[in-house]
Amino acid sequence: MPVATPIDATPEQLARVRYNVDGLVPAIVQEHTSGAVLTLAWMNAETLAETLETGRTVFWSRSRQERWRKGDTSGDRQWVRAAFYDCDGDTLLFAVEQEGAGACHTGERSCFFRAFGAELGAAASSNVS
Amino acid sequence: MPVATPIDATPEQLARVRYNVDGLVPAIVQEHTSGAVLTLAWMNAETLAETLETGRTVFWSRSRQERWRKGDTSGDRQWVRAAFYDCDGDTLLFAVEQEGAGACHTGERSCFFRAFGAELGAAASSNVS
Repeated sequence: MPVATPIDATPEQLARVRYNVDGLVPAIVQEHTSGAVLTLAWMNAETLAETLETGRTVFWSRSRQERWRKGDTSGDRQWVRAAFYDCDGDTLLFAVEQEGAGACHTGERSCFFRAFGAELGAAASSNVS
Repeated sequence: MPVATPIDATPEQLARVRYNVDGLVPAIVQEHTSGAVLTLAWMNAETLAETLETGRTVFWSRSRQERWRKGDTSGDRQWVRAAFYDCDGDTLLFAVEQEGAGACHTGERSCFFRAFGAELGAAASSNVS
């Protein structure tokens, strides 16, 4: 099992995160080795704190309106290796080690497996051209 | 100057995109060579269509409530090399060739140049650990 590496964020760093009117912020999840973008999900202040403290991604499900810890049912856990916030604090980026088959509920490694335009074949699954 | 490579999206592909109540969808922008995540911005149906047709990223500014073509004032244009939509159609991903200094208005290459926890040095600017 991959090792969890908790991140000790400072109160100043956490205070820079800006949530939308629903109290949520988008979180991009990227595979730390390949650089592939795996998914985008949403966090509130509580699931962001839990993600950093435990070293596993935890999101807020907008459709189910509940906390959702990635991989609890699928086994496809995401182990955080680095975490970033953007210049205006309204988007997060997590570099993770993806366990299991992948990040997508369809069984694909990345949720971004469909390209606009002609089919790109292998490029569509790695999303780095 | 980089060459524009328009993407001929089908009506079926475009119909799979789901916009939020404001008519917007988040668009992740990734550097196609390095895999670095550069920024996240928002598009409506019109700026998505323009992005695909012209091969340059065009966004919708939520703060200014206006169309915003990346690089028109800064010169830091983004040339689209591939474009993806995710499994449930509510997030877009663009692999781009970034022209100029970078994607961020601060002068940084990526908007995600600040890490939670201890400073990561070089990792914070490439965002792939």
